[in-house]
Amino acid sequence: MAEFDFISQYRDTFVTYLKDKVQWQEPENLYEPIRYILDLGGKRMRPVLTLMTADMYGAKVEDALDAALAVEMFHNFSLVHDDIMDDAPLRRGKITVHEKWDINTGILSGDAMLILSYQFFEEYPAELYLELTKLFSKTALEVCEGQQYDVDFETRDDVTIPEYIKMIEYKTSVLVAAAMKMGALVANAPQKDADAIYEFGRNLGIAFQLQDDYLDAFGDPKTFGKQVGGDIMENKKTYLYLKALEKATKDDQDGLLHLYSIKPADADAKVEAVKTIFKESGAVDETKQAIENYTQKAFDVLDTLDLPAPKKQLLQAFGEALMNRTV
Amino acid sequence: MAEFDFISQYRDTFVTYLKDKVQWQEPENLYEPIRYILDLGGKRMRPVLTLMTADMYGAKVEDALDAALAVEMFHNFSLVHDDIMDDAPLRRGKITVHEKWDINTGILSGDAMLILSYQFFEEYPAELYLELTKLFSKTALEVCEGQQYDVDFETRDDVTIPEYIKMIEYKTSVLVAAAMKMGALVANAPQKDADAIYEFGRNLGIAFQLQDDYLDAFGDPKTFGKQVGGDIMENKKTYLYLKALEKATKDDQDGLLHLYSIKPADADAKVEAVKTIFKESGAVDETKQAIENYTQKAFDVLDTLDLPAPKKQLLQAFGEALMNRTV
Repeated sequence: MAEFDFISQYRDTFVTYLKDKVQWQEPENLYEPIRYILDLGGKRMRPVLTLMTADMYGAKVEDALDAALAVEMFHNFSLVHDDIMDDAPLRRGKITVHEKWDINTGILSGDAMLILSYQFFEEYPAELYLELTKLFSKTALEVCEGQQYDVDFETRDDVTIPEYIKMIEYKTSVLVAAAMKMGALVANAPQKDADAIYEFGRNLGIAFQLQDDYLDAFGDPKTFGKQVGGDIMENKKTYLYLKALEKATKDDQDGLLHLYSIKPADADAKVEAVKTIFKESGAVDETKQAIENYTQKAFDVLDTLDLPAPKKQLLQAFGEALMNRTV
Repeated sequence: MAEFDFISQYRDTFVTYLKDKVQWQEPENLYEPIRYILDLGGKRMRPVLTLMTADMYGAKVEDALDAALAVEMFHNFSLVHDDIMDDAPLRRGKITVHEKWDINTGILSGDAMLILSYQFFEEYPAELYLELTKLFSKTALEVCEGQQYDVDFETRDDVTIPEYIKMIEYKTSVLVAAAMKMGALVANAPQKDADAIYEFGRNLGIAFQLQDDYLDAFGDPKTFGKQVGGDIMENKKTYLYLKALEKATKDDQDGLLHLYSIKPADADAKVEAVKTIFKESGAVDETKQAIENYTQKAFDVLDTLDLPAPKKQLLQAFGEALMNRTV
């Protein structure tokens, strides 16, 4: 999305503020891992969305910086704890906190990050503080619930499509939605618009995650950030998989269940076989359709916003750029 | 403290409310461990203190229940995460959460508990909510910092007495102090009194923890809840140890350093040798004096409170009962 200059401006503003605010005290062993994970970078998509939404509704961008920082801090908290749970060695190409230090450090620094997130809201007036932190707590709890559903699904054979959508919604979309809504709340936007912005973010977030499922199997290995076929190798029950199980012929269902019960040393043949079933069952078409539907739902919300047309077009362009990524 | 009937009344009121409020939704695997740890019981000292303080300052006890619940939920969150970090098999005589389920469940359920703590404050009006959650965040962060200092001290040879006092203050006293201050805030007590009540709790909490150090070495094995001598066996740098290092003869210093570098299979001789140095160095007397001083500091604060004498006497009697425990 290099074409959106304003996005990199928000990002620069945010990162400058982050570096200024994240200057910490003792004990060093608690705060050093926090600085480390926050310095790893990333796209800073969530805080940028907070600043952008606040700006659109006429707030000073600076007034949204604390909310943006809370969102980014929370996101990084969830990365630190998730990486422990997933036993992940790398995050953004760098060694994870619990590998660089140890699991106890990851747990405790993560806990401190969750608390620090709340503290960043303290600069807001009491009524706005209540509104922001209520949304924050609700969202944070849903993220935990989404993570638990994701864990539960690994050992369940009866996951339904609505359950899967709820899992990705909780695990990833609600934080994107809340990040945008917080921007609207800081700008004192009409409640109706704040709610609609949340729906825009929520639906776009689901579409984005479904597209991630699709690209994990069918993306271009040259541009997709992760290993293409990784979900299939790990027998991860994605939207593609669940739809394929629903729609495939009995033989293909049995074949898919078998392929998802093994982890062969040479994974290529398995990946190809699974992808063939995904295609022939119609699961690929259904997934593309679902991505399209959620994206459209997000865009439909824009019509209801009390914003001038150019700003709506900007939000739509942002959504389109996000969804037309080839990576 | 069986003589304090009102304490068991507060406890009963609290436990009834807890059981009513902690009726949770899905996912079961996230919320079941939360119910489990909260059902293990314990003295409920912190929430009782919140209710008692609110009552003293003329609030309806019911109005303090949500703050009390937040404090108890946070305390149990810290137990779940600490038990992972300490690799503890038992808590209150029952199997710990991460042993009954697994480490990931302990991490994630703990995270959810921290967030739920904040949510319990949402029923309060905006200004009071801000005041309570600001105090809560500050306290929660200090508890994390205290835990980190405790971890750091294990591998440090140059821990000072002021550092040790700060560690136990953060790790245990500030939550007791905050629990009481929240009761005062809910009751809309004068700011001066709310601050003084905090100091009462903070000093009494330090005295209590120093007494715990003392009883761990010199308590009655029949009535002390934990294994007497446990800290010495684990080479834990307590107030007794730090004072002994400061005051002992050169020979005894060397002896103590040696004894604290070994973990013999038969620990009895070591425990006795260490206790002799604790006594002969004057560390025992100094520790008793410090307990007395912090207790007295707490009681001195009572003079400044804008409360009728009988209520001050009740707080003092509560403090005395707490400190005259033989267990």
